[in-house]
Parts: sequence; C-alpha cells; structure tokens
Amino acid sequence: MELHTCLWSDVAAFDFASDDFHALQQAFPSLNLVVHDNADSFLAAAASVAWLLTWEFPEAWYASCPNLQTIMTPASGRDWIAADPSSQVEVVHGTFHGPMMAESALSALLYMNHQMPLMLQNHADRAWDRNLQQNSRLLGNQCVVIVGFGRIGQAFGQLIGTTGAEVIGVRRSNPGELDGMQVRTVSDLPEVLPSADHVILVLPGDNSTDHFLTPELIRLCKPGVYLYNFGRGNALTTDTVLEVACDIGGAFLDVTDVEPLPSDSQLWQLPNVMITPHSSCIYQEYKANFVAEVIRHLQSETRS
Amino acid sequence: MELHTCLWSDVAAFDFASDDFHALQQAFPSLNLVVHDNADSFLAAAASVAWLLTWEFPEAWYASCPNLQTIMTPASGRDWIAADPSSQVEVVHGTFHGPMMAESALSALLYMNHQMPLMLQNHADRAWDRNLQQNSRLLGNQCVVIVGFGRIGQAFGQLIGTTGAEVIGVRRSNPGELDGMQVRTVSDLPEVLPSADHVILVLPGDNSTDHFLTPELIRLCKPGVYLYNFGRGNALTTDTVLEVACDIGGAFLDVTDVEPLPSDSQLWQLPNVMITPHSSCIYQEYKANFVAEVIRHLQSETRS
Repeated sequence: MELHTCLWSDVAAFDFASDDFHALQQAFPSLNLVVHDNADSFLAAAASVAWLLTWEFPEAWYASCPNLQTIMTPASGRDWIAADPSSQVEVVHGTFHGPMMAESALSALLYMNHQMPLMLQNHADRAWDRNLQQNSRLLGNQCVVIVGFGRIGQAFGQLIGTTGAEVIGVRRSNPGELDGMQVRTVSDLPEVLPSADHVILVLPGDNSTDHFLTPELIRLCKPGVYLYNFGRGNALTTDTVLEVACDIGGAFLDVTDVEPLPSDSQLWQLPNVMITPHSSCIYQEYKANFVAEVIRHLQSETRS
Repeated sequence: MELHTCLWSDVAAFDFASDDFHALQQAFPSLNLVVHDNADSFLAAAASVAWLLTWEFPEAWYASCPNLQTIMTPASGRDWIAADPSSQVEVVHGTFHGPMMAESALSALLYMNHQMPLMLQNHADRAWDRNLQQNSRLLGNQCVVIVGFGRIGQAFGQLIGTTGAEVIGVRRSNPGELDGMQVRTVSDLPEVLPSADHVILVLPGDNSTDHFLTPELIRLCKPGVYLYNFGRGNALTTDTVLEVACDIGGAFLDVTDVEPLPSDSQLWQLPNVMITPHSSCIYQEYKANFVAEVIRHLQSETRS
C-alpha cells in the first residue's frame, strides 16, 4: 500500500515531516509513505496516488489524480478540500480537535471571567489593588451558551460544565438534552441569549453562517456578556464587534473575518478584545493525534 | 440571641455591611445583629459579646470579652485570630474557599500553560504569529503536583483533574488515594517533583512552612516547570523565585513573602512571573458564601 502526504505548513505545529509518521510506519511496516513538501512534487506523482493525507486539495487537482480513492485531512473545517466533481473520492476530516480546542476555550473563558486584563494592568503598574477584580463571579455559577454544538462544541460543553457552569448548546436541529447539557436550536436563540453570561461560537465557515451573530442578537444578551469565537471569523465580523464593543464585557477572538488580521485593524485597539492568531489547536499533541486517527482509519479499512 | 460583627475591610469583596446579612436575618428573625465598622465601636460593646464574626482578633481583645463563646471568621488561614489564653473560646474558620480558589488556580494554570504571555505580546505587536504557542502541551496530558492537600488543595485537584491531568497531592501524612488522586507525603517530594509539570503551593502560613519550596527542591523538577503559590508567601520567597527564575517555565504568584509587594520588588520585573494581589478569593460570591456558612453553623448550634 502507498500513502502520499501533502502536509507542509508555515505553522510548525501543523507541519508534518517524515519523523511525524513514525507511529504510522510502526503500525503498517509495509506501508510505502511518500512525504511531499511542495505541490510540484505531489503533482509529479499524482497520477498514481490512491491515498492522500493533505491540508488542501484544489478542485483542479482532481483531474490529475485519476486513481484517487481517499483524502484524509487533519482539518475539521470543510474550508480547504474542494468537492470532487465526480463524487468518487472519499474525504475524511479530522475528529480529534475537541479536547484541544476545549482547553483553549476554557483558558479564554477563565481569562475573561476572572478579569485577567485588569490583573495584567495591576502587574504593569506594580500595584496591589485588591478591588480591581471585585466584579468577578464564579464561572461555575454562570450560564455558557455554545453556538455550534457538533463534536467540538460538545467537547467544549463537557469541559466547561465541570466547573459547575450551566451549559446550553445551540445547533440547527435536534433540541433536547445531551450529557446533562440543554440543547436548543438556532430559532430558540432569542429565548436563550438573555440568560447567557458567555456566548461561544464554534460554527463552521460557510455561507449559512455569514454574519451569524448580529448586533441585534448580541443586544439580547445581558449587558456585560462575554463573546468568544473559536469557529470561523465570518460568523462574528469585525464590524459587528466594533459596533457592540461598548455594550459587552469583552470578546476573545481566536478567529477573525480576515486572517491574518491586518495590523491596522481597529479590532486590535479595543481595550476589551483579546485576539489570538487562530491558534486554538496549536498544541504539541496535534500531529500525533492526527497520525493516531489515520492509523485507526487504515486499520478499520484493512479489516473491512 | 445577639451576634456582633467586625467584618470591615479595605477590600470591597471582603467588606461586610448590614445588607450582606440579609439571609442571616431571614433565617433567624429574632437575631439581634450588631454590625461594627471599627474597633472602637466593637470594644465599647465587647463586655457583652458572646458571638462574634470577625476578620481579626488580637490577643488583647480577649481580656475585654469575658462572655465571648464563639468567634467565626471568614478566613481559612489561621493568621489573624490570636489564640485564646484561656482556651475557652471556640474559633470557627471558613471552609467555603475551595471552589473559588480552585477556579482561580485553574485560570492561572491555563494562563501559563497555553502561553498567554506570548499571546499578549502577539496582540500588542498586532502580529499573527502562529508559531509562538508551538510549545504548548495539553494540560490534560500533564502532571500537576499540589503541595498542601487539605480541603482547599483537594478542591484544586478535583477541578484540575477534570481536564484529564494527573494530580498528585502532597501533605504531611496519610499517603494513599483520594477521589482518584494519588496522595503522597512531604518526605516523598524528591520522588514526586521530577514528574511535575506544574507545582501548586496551597500551604498554610506558619513557621513550619517558611522557605518550604527551596531552590534545591525546585531544581528536582523538570526544566521549564511552572510554579504557583496560592497559599502563603512564606513558602516560596522572593529570593527563591529570583534564584530559580531562569530554570523554570514561569511562576504565577497570588501571594508573596511581603504583602503588598513593594513596587520596587525585583519580582515585578521578571518576564516569566505573573503576580496577582492575593486575590484568589475575590469573587462576588464570597460574602454570601460566608453568611450561608454562618447560618448552617448557627442552625447546628441551635439544634444541638
């Protein structure tokens, strides 16, 4: 069996080299692994490729890959693998992101909730002001609404719920209960948002989520609500954040509507906004977790 | 029944006024509550006081309080209520701090572990550097050693353990297991510390804990270990932190050996040290939690 990879990246945490596939080679000693580090190298071999691990797959590549059977990509988001015009190629997305992103989201929640920006100012001032945090309330006594309640949103809810916080998941359909968490639908948002102390977006990036969290929806929340975006930037735009910034406690944005966010964006200047560079999955475990998922997938294919 | 209070404070979160005792008055409608806002007012009434809620009780006050039966204090630490020379007065300390301090400690762990100082620099630079966090590892895959494993330390362990992290509690005696957490004794520290990715101190402040975490013990930890102090500053002194700063990943200190930490302390200048002003219990819930504990105590006294 032969497996090709196109998993180079400018981001070290996401840049797979031959060494990163050690566990895969051990699990499948006869596997012929071909690690490409640029598109030309891949395209020169494309005609024979049946199994591919890749970050991206432009539509034009399908014509060069007549034998392609399966694409596996680490990404959970559907952004970078074009649809196969012939609908013959299986596309398998990574499903391992939940625990990493949940830890990043919990970090963000606690950072905002316990007034860490004020504590950083206290430190910078070399002060000892014990009244700066007086408005802190236990996250465990608050209500966290997670919009986008698939596999990743549910992982957020499970981790955040361990603090004691009430978690309400919101998704397109199928309201009910899940692991002790209330599940509501998008049409329930006007009822749900007034209870929210924290609203976390984990929506996929497609046209249906453009401008999802509007200023009107945000104004249904409590004054002082905290907003978080760990999905895609199209759902909470720069214009929206600028418009509501004075009405909210703050926003923690791991994604923005333009990435990289330009250095002259006004978002950087808002005192109650914290921006991280789409880094909620940047952990040393990332590459090993994907390789473990590839191994499981190949094992199940081999058995079937 | 009459109950006096000496619970004024410069810290708003800890400054009890009459309004804060509403639940107590409701629970005991016939209770005569006398809220003092300074020592002179209390001392003028001291001769008749049997029940007292107070932050502090200097030894000299015992002579003025011949009828004193019970002192209740919100503080968990034994620092501010002098011992009764006659050993007649019952002193009841607050036991409600665990969940608050645990949330503060988890905030600190995630702040250090997910390289938030680098993310703050990225934000200040208006950059989008996705390689700054590349050394982050999931807290859930790491080992957290909690030194001081009484009620509060155990609350830390229970919350931190929900991330998946291995928690090892260290206390004076009684090794074993507790709620799935390994418990070791102080004499085991040379064996335990080499596994630690994070070491959290929650020790009480008395002579037995002076200079507890020495540079020699810290050097048994992995290079890059993170240290946290949520107990008392005497256990991890300024001199020690200055000595080991280059060998550790960083330190998050909620307490320091001198408080308030003077503005000219070198601790403020260390780039990998974050200091908060002994604020791990500063939550809006603090006063209500203490009053709820007073109610429970009075109810049990009334029943017995």
